[in-house]
Amino acid sequence: MTFSSPERCDILDNRPIGIFDSGLGGLTCVREVMKIMPDEDIIYFGDTGRVPYGSRSSATIVKYVRQDINFLRSFDIKFIIIACGTASAAALPHITTEYDTDIIGVVDAASKRAVKATRNGRIGVLGTRGTINSGKYVEKIGKLNPDFEVVSNACPMFVPIVENGYADSEVADILAKEYLERLVERQVDTIILGCTHYPLLRNTIQKIVGNDVTLIDSGAAAAQDAKDIITRHGLRSDRKSTGRAKYYVSDTIHGFEELGSLFLSKKIDGDVAKIDIEKY
Amino acid sequence: MTFSSPERCDILDNRPIGIFDSGLGGLTCVREVMKIMPDEDIIYFGDTGRVPYGSRSSATIVKYVRQDINFLRSFDIKFIIIACGTASAAALPHITTEYDTDIIGVVDAASKRAVKATRNGRIGVLGTRGTINSGKYVEKIGKLNPDFEVVSNACPMFVPIVENGYADSEVADILAKEYLERLVERQVDTIILGCTHYPLLRNTIQKIVGNDVTLIDSGAAAAQDAKDIITRHGLRSDRKSTGRAKYYVSDTIHGFEELGSLFLSKKIDGDVAKIDIEKY
Repeated sequence: MTFSSPERCDILDNRPIGIFDSGLGGLTCVREVMKIMPDEDIIYFGDTGRVPYGSRSSATIVKYVRQDINFLRSFDIKFIIIACGTASAAALPHITTEYDTDIIGVVDAASKRAVKATRNGRIGVLGTRGTINSGKYVEKIGKLNPDFEVVSNACPMFVPIVENGYADSEVADILAKEYLERLVERQVDTIILGCTHYPLLRNTIQKIVGNDVTLIDSGAAAAQDAKDIITRHGLRSDRKSTGRAKYYVSDTIHGFEELGSLFLSKKIDGDVAKIDIEKY
Repeated sequence: MTFSSPERCDILDNRPIGIFDSGLGGLTCVREVMKIMPDEDIIYFGDTGRVPYGSRSSATIVKYVRQDINFLRSFDIKFIIIACGTASAAALPHITTEYDTDIIGVVDAASKRAVKATRNGRIGVLGTRGTINSGKYVEKIGKLNPDFEVVSNACPMFVPIVENGYADSEVADILAKEYLERLVERQVDTIILGCTHYPLLRNTIQKIVGNDVTLIDSGAAAAQDAKDIITRHGLRSDRKSTGRAKYYVSDTIHGFEELGSLFLSKKIDGDVAKIDIEKY
């Protein structure tokens, strides 16, 4: 059947999609949303005043994520993407039933994509300490296919490397070799970049593991999942023009446009404002 | 005159000294206080839930520092040391008149010590972006001796290097060489380690600059200044035994004892508790 169901056609929805991250890494997800759903409006929140989430306790992350969601819900949004590996892994299972807005994270999306991509059933996962310690990728991939082997490694230096402009450097090469050693030994053929900062290290990582290994961009995977769900629920925009994006951060907006454009792979074109996230 | 003034003898004060940092680096200052004033009680607060301060805006740092001070003042303390380069540089000048407790930071203490130590009048300063961008070291040293040259450099990768166990590694060597290049070129003979994490990189730095360059530990300098002021005001403890230390953090206490003992150079011996700093 190629016909749309009536529900799918009748409910068009021009409300924005909310996307948040602990900082700017989530802009790699925004980039993908803009690519595959260019007509959608986007509200982005980067919790730059409290970044990084990756080294914090689970309880702290859950508290922060509730505030991030409350802030996005203060707009009339139709959908939320948690474009942060740590927040998706540590908080999403705890808060998923608390809201009547659909919320997805990067863990489920990237796991599904990796399970489809692997040929030898060996999947590597790279993430922050918070993401890896949560065990959520192992759990999710295990549910999708219990026969698959998952080799995880925390890469605590990758976020500072990216944020300080060392993505293509000798230091990045040395650390990436160290972090990837066990994954290469176990001959994984698919690696989940389980933190939305890591796509900026794609070249460095690919160089070490070789071109036969598939790298899964978890932010892009979440964007694709979001499109599938929004389309299925008939909530796509019927706008005939390009959507607008608004960006909010919890620390100074100074420097956001410069650093943000690195992640977005293009100039930040939209309002940027600072908010007090502790009020939410 | 070798006699003490009556005021100095009459007012002995067994209240604890409050010390805080954005995280655990301030324990290098606690270590020094324990060494030179072993009979004093200490209340330490490490804002591990909001670390790092170094990359945040000045307004955010001032807000955090007020909360940190309010927390310490909720105990009956006699003195506060800001054992954080970033907080001392960005916030101390703004808040110094707001409290009736004596508060000192690392910038003044380390500047004074560096000005005394230099032989050629060329002083290097290493710190976080927040510390270096504040220009406070240049300002302070310029006031002490306008003829001295100050060569500053921000070292944004040093804190993650220390916190992730790379203090003695090839990566630390490469980055330290890069960060120190201009200081070596300008032939500074004294370098302020303007972040309380940096004493853990002392060996790496000394190896690059050579043994003729004096490294000033800013946390230790603040501890010495605190002793001078407390003694001058007659507020030293008259306790005949070793003081006790209590440690508070704003994120999980899990891992604090292990990582903390790195900075303290000995086992953490004292209560550790988590508090909600946003309430202060």
